[in-house]
Amino acid sequence: MTTQRPLPSALAYVPFVSVDNMMRLVNHLGAETLLTELADYIEADFKRWPEFDKTPRIASHSADGVIELMPTADRENYGFKYVNGHPANMKRGFQTVTAFGVLSSVANGYPVLLSEMTVLTALRTAATSALVARYLAPRDATVMAMIGNGAQCEFQAMAFRAICGITDLRLYDIDPAATDKAARNLEAEGFAVTRCASGEEAVQGAQIITTCTADKQYATILTDNMVGAGVHINAIGGDCPGKTELHADILRRSDIFVEYPEQTRIEGEIQQLDPDHPVTELWQVMRGEAEGRREPRQITLFDSVGFAIEDFSALRYVSDLVRDTAFFEPLDMLADPDDPRDLFGMLRRAVD
Amino acid sequence: MTTQRPLPSALAYVPFVSVDNMMRLVNHLGAETLLTELADYIEADFKRWPEFDKTPRIASHSADGVIELMPTADRENYGFKYVNGHPANMKRGFQTVTAFGVLSSVANGYPVLLSEMTVLTALRTAATSALVARYLAPRDATVMAMIGNGAQCEFQAMAFRAICGITDLRLYDIDPAATDKAARNLEAEGFAVTRCASGEEAVQGAQIITTCTADKQYATILTDNMVGAGVHINAIGGDCPGKTELHADILRRSDIFVEYPEQTRIEGEIQQLDPDHPVTELWQVMRGEAEGRREPRQITLFDSVGFAIEDFSALRYVSDLVRDTAFFEPLDMLADPDDPRDLFGMLRRAVD
Repeated sequence: MTTQRPLPSALAYVPFVSVDNMMRLVNHLGAETLLTELADYIEADFKRWPEFDKTPRIASHSADGVIELMPTADRENYGFKYVNGHPANMKRGFQTVTAFGVLSSVANGYPVLLSEMTVLTALRTAATSALVARYLAPRDATVMAMIGNGAQCEFQAMAFRAICGITDLRLYDIDPAATDKAARNLEAEGFAVTRCASGEEAVQGAQIITTCTADKQYATILTDNMVGAGVHINAIGGDCPGKTELHADILRRSDIFVEYPEQTRIEGEIQQLDPDHPVTELWQVMRGEAEGRREPRQITLFDSVGFAIEDFSALRYVSDLVRDTAFFEPLDMLADPDDPRDLFGMLRRAVD
Repeated sequence: MTTQRPLPSALAYVPFVSVDNMMRLVNHLGAETLLTELADYIEADFKRWPEFDKTPRIASHSADGVIELMPTADRENYGFKYVNGHPANMKRGFQTVTAFGVLSSVANGYPVLLSEMTVLTALRTAATSALVARYLAPRDATVMAMIGNGAQCEFQAMAFRAICGITDLRLYDIDPAATDKAARNLEAEGFAVTRCASGEEAVQGAQIITTCTADKQYATILTDNMVGAGVHINAIGGDCPGKTELHADILRRSDIFVEYPEQTRIEGEIQQLDPDHPVTELWQVMRGEAEGRREPRQITLFDSVGFAIEDFSALRYVSDLVRDTAFFEPLDMLADPDDPRDLFGMLRRAVD
């Protein structure tokens, strides 16, 4: 029997943004425009922080690493990110971190976007860092030290130029090949780049210090004597239990700003401090309910760990961005029978 | 500049089973073969129950419904299902329940399968019911009453024929159109079908009673006088807080078998009973560590709510099944740069 094979209805399709389309999207729009617009979405969501359903991430740990689900929702949308972290992956030819995410309609539970999030997470982390620095860093900052020149490094630099006006970069990594890679990429983007032989050298003259190293251990990338008055520290790499980058003495001299204290106290630099050490929540700074930078000699520290709402903002932005474009593929992911009770009949009619 | 656009490496691709491919797969293999093989996977996983990392599902509730993530893992694989439940959807032309799932490698955190799970959940629910009935129902059962003839009905019937030898079906639904739909589908599959005017009529002469209704409320589909000695009850529809189908008196006369007591006491029929009412865990029955049916006059009850391990088994089965077939599409979902630290360079090289 050969009847006309029925096509799935429009409701069956979920827009999917592949890695390839995500890269095309970034190159089409320009990384700096995209990072700036993404930061605007993140800022808008931070400003309505109390509206979100916030849960700690759900982690499944194994000897080799961790797989996490990070859900959050507001009244309109539900979003979650799947992300793994496997420190030994790189030696075996795999990415340490891969991610994808889904945005859904709260009203009917249907997914409205499936997106790669390995690239998107790098973008949202950088956009968040630069957005936070706009509130905390010295206003006239043009020089940034970057300690740790791995996968996240160039995204941070691009976001800090687009959002904070950084033009000069001072790079250092324990692996000179990483610094070479980052310097090559960033010189091609028009930055003034200085390759440094040590962390001490990198921080010379920098108004902002970004630490972004990957070792899963208590490390001391910055010691107390390296941090002068008035500096803003953007600490990206202290982001899971047992992994920190800064000496505790720096934390004690700094005013510390965090995304979600419940999560940062477990995962961030402040896991080294007393559980009641004072921290300021960034959403309150953005709403004008808490102070950001007060005076020129103050050391400010963003203890970044990455929170589900930033992924939600990123998915919401990409969903808005790709609508009416060719930067997605429709994915036949939802069964949508004509008669919702006749799932079996739909299946049988699919014989071809 | 027009250089050769590099193709993503094999590592970037995740096999994706669309709704269309899932339906082709069922029709290619035959629903009964697939249900039987799927039940074998579920049984194998129930038999190694203690090896699994078990978490209650993570639910996000709203006025309109619920969106849930159901993760679980063994030493080799991690799996999760996304599933929504929106009772008002059907009136608005959407499915009440849609689902998809992902299976990953615990060793490196990479997804190895993305699959539609609306059809697959119907299949795994039916396979689980029939598998459980093989341990609990009277050995010579050939007649099954089915109260509630919605989307799940035909899948249950097919599984019970393939796995338990059921040939005669007695159908009843408060909506005669649902019964007509199910009867039409099931007669075409070769069942002897009796359309009944009431639940009381449907249970006459049945050795197995399947209840599968959808109303989200405390309902009484079966009253105490309808259930005779020796019957096995397969209760599918009492599956969330506030939703039950059986009168509590039936529960008190039955030996009750459950998937995961922590979840069933909240979601199942037994939410009507004391929190310490004795129940038997099915994995222990399958391992021979607890008794199933003891004697002919005993009433056995499977209080089915659906557990993450069944979805895990289903994903594991589909992953094995589609390997080396054409029933999946490779999805470019994972960023996989040549140099894992050069995500930015990969992005820039993607300019075309």
